[in-house]
Amino acid sequence: MSVERQPISGAVGIVGVGLMGGSLGLAARRYAGVEQVRGYSRSRATLSLAVERGAITEACDSLEAACRGVDLVFVATPVRLIPEHVRAALAAAPPHAVVSDMGSTKGGLMAALSEEQQRRFVGGHPLCGSETAGVANATASLYRGATYFLTPGAHVDHRAVERLFAFVRDIGARPVSIDPDEHDRIMALVSHLPHALANTLMTQAGEHRGSRDVLLSGGPSFRDLTRVAGANPRIWADIFLENRAALLASLETFRHGLDELITVLRSSDEERLEEMIRRAAGHRRRMLAASSLPAEELFRIVVRIPDRPGVFRDIFVALGDANINVEDFSMHHESAELGGTLTVYVLGEQVCRRGAAVLGALGYSPVTARESE
Amino acid sequence: MSVERQPISGAVGIVGVGLMGGSLGLAARRYAGVEQVRGYSRSRATLSLAVERGAITEACDSLEAACRGVDLVFVATPVRLIPEHVRAALAAAPPHAVVSDMGSTKGGLMAALSEEQQRRFVGGHPLCGSETAGVANATASLYRGATYFLTPGAHVDHRAVERLFAFVRDIGARPVSIDPDEHDRIMALVSHLPHALANTLMTQAGEHRGSRDVLLSGGPSFRDLTRVAGANPRIWADIFLENRAALLASLETFRHGLDELITVLRSSDEERLEEMIRRAAGHRRRMLAASSLPAEELFRIVVRIPDRPGVFRDIFVALGDANINVEDFSMHHESAELGGTLTVYVLGEQVCRRGAAVLGALGYSPVTARESE
Repeated sequence: MSVERQPISGAVGIVGVGLMGGSLGLAARRYAGVEQVRGYSRSRATLSLAVERGAITEACDSLEAACRGVDLVFVATPVRLIPEHVRAALAAAPPHAVVSDMGSTKGGLMAALSEEQQRRFVGGHPLCGSETAGVANATASLYRGATYFLTPGAHVDHRAVERLFAFVRDIGARPVSIDPDEHDRIMALVSHLPHALANTLMTQAGEHRGSRDVLLSGGPSFRDLTRVAGANPRIWADIFLENRAALLASLETFRHGLDELITVLRSSDEERLEEMIRRAAGHRRRMLAASSLPAEELFRIVVRIPDRPGVFRDIFVALGDANINVEDFSMHHESAELGGTLTVYVLGEQVCRRGAAVLGALGYSPVTARESE
Repeated sequence: MSVERQPISGAVGIVGVGLMGGSLGLAARRYAGVEQVRGYSRSRATLSLAVERGAITEACDSLEAACRGVDLVFVATPVRLIPEHVRAALAAAPPHAVVSDMGSTKGGLMAALSEEQQRRFVGGHPLCGSETAGVANATASLYRGATYFLTPGAHVDHRAVERLFAFVRDIGARPVSIDPDEHDRIMALVSHLPHALANTLMTQAGEHRGSRDVLLSGGPSFRDLTRVAGANPRIWADIFLENRAALLASLETFRHGLDELITVLRSSDEERLEEMIRRAAGHRRRMLAASSLPAEELFRIVVRIPDRPGVFRDIFVALGDANINVEDFSMHHESAELGGTLTVYVLGEQVCRRGAAVLGALGYSPVTARESE
């Protein structure tokens, strides 16, 4: 079985039309020229509201019906149900269709899929927080400007990645390819650990035994640190458990960090304490600098690559690992013997040079050029 | 020595004219009708800028000169220098003057002052965060709407509290009286611990050994949790050390909370995990509800109290402990034998009833009334 080239703007299926799935439907119609959005939810009320809000064009009475005749399926159900729904979607959708999910962990999901299933499946995870839930709060602009992780497995067909990548760009998000396991480690650190810390702090303050209720004394820093505290308990208990191993590792590392601070405080080591805060300040400066880079010119990097799925995926993950954001790409297939030509677009001359170096290190001979030339 | 009654809108002295001191000077002139603000800073450049910005009206070349002839002195220097500066200000200011500080810890400071010094000293701590520093960023509105802790010691003269309380209300802040040690425990929990957690998380993410730089993958929750990371290392190392005992206790409690989470995750106890998040959600709801109470009518509570400083202070701390915000108060002294009449103003009939109950429990016989009556 292989993935056929199809226009992206055909039909999309969405399994689970809550905030994420509903927003994706709205975005697909508004920004990606998708005409038909088939949706399925266990709740009839949710389906009706999704139609009313324009998040889907067809209310389907089964997962299978939502996958019928579509080019792209998004599974946007709670993380625990995703493996089962992805397998069902792969079985129900047309042979050319690409299936993706929107869950916040990927390792367990990939382990639950066969090599064959991984060919047409590309995990996805948009990084966009919201304090709301439900299709009632869905909005077409939810994903605009958000980093949108793509986690292609080792056996993926490049056309599947290409189709999803193009769609994600169309809806205004920034696709970044990354290894599924590394994705989970990063999410444990930048999302699940922050939620765990916020919950722990909130409960500690709420249950502090003192005279005055400390919850009435929280200033801006306390508000910041607890904004995500208590977020959807059922969903987050699931996410924590799905990413249990990586989260446990992050928690252990955090505890070591606290122990270091406790030791320094106990010994009143002012110099070291100041140095610890300076370290954090340096990392924060670096983060802020990285997220406010000026707009730069578009460059292209062209490589000839063999016709094997793993090759394509390795290139994208290597670029993602090197923090190179791929703005766009195209793949021209020539033949099984000759392979094809991959053109990757990046912003800025320096990023282009770094990208070429990454591809050179993988054994390819990249050719680079300013796009306007 | 006793505190004489004086008009509040006389002259104010400010020792240390950075962001906090400079903003206080601007607020005193704009909102409290203060005409003369005498300022001192070790840095001539800071003093010039403070005059230029209107934060002070007189640039003084010593702490003593800044205290000359004023009614109120604010020590707004780094926390480590405050005890020395407060003692110097008490010695230099006129006998009727009240001295306050703006530091974020109080226990060490109170221990450094004699009973006699504590008569005319009332610690203060406005809860208003800012990512900026220096008089260049000072603004008259910094304290408007902010909780402003007052930490009167056991030996304070009620007229000193009265004067500072009125001034704090005049500049638009919400004065809340609290015991100095409980203040430090609360600050450890709602401010110093959040900063410590933010620093630890920022450094952990910045030094994560993975392929992709995780700092480029932080979503909204990571941004929230690290907004205060790396804040002014010299100032914060001082604050941590000044409040070392309370911060260590908070860190230990937090570590126990993390250990509980680790245990629950290790055993994949979904029910308990969900219950832990629900607990945090409940506390956060309570916090949000408490901070968005509707405006209510003003009520007064009147009690006759004996003429002893400790009595007055105990009443205010008891009201603060019961989360009763005192909107205003007045004290009419009759004689050493008869004592005086204290009128406390609060918002809302229910708060008034609770306030009366608190005073009743202290052995007084409060009389309450709607202020318009």
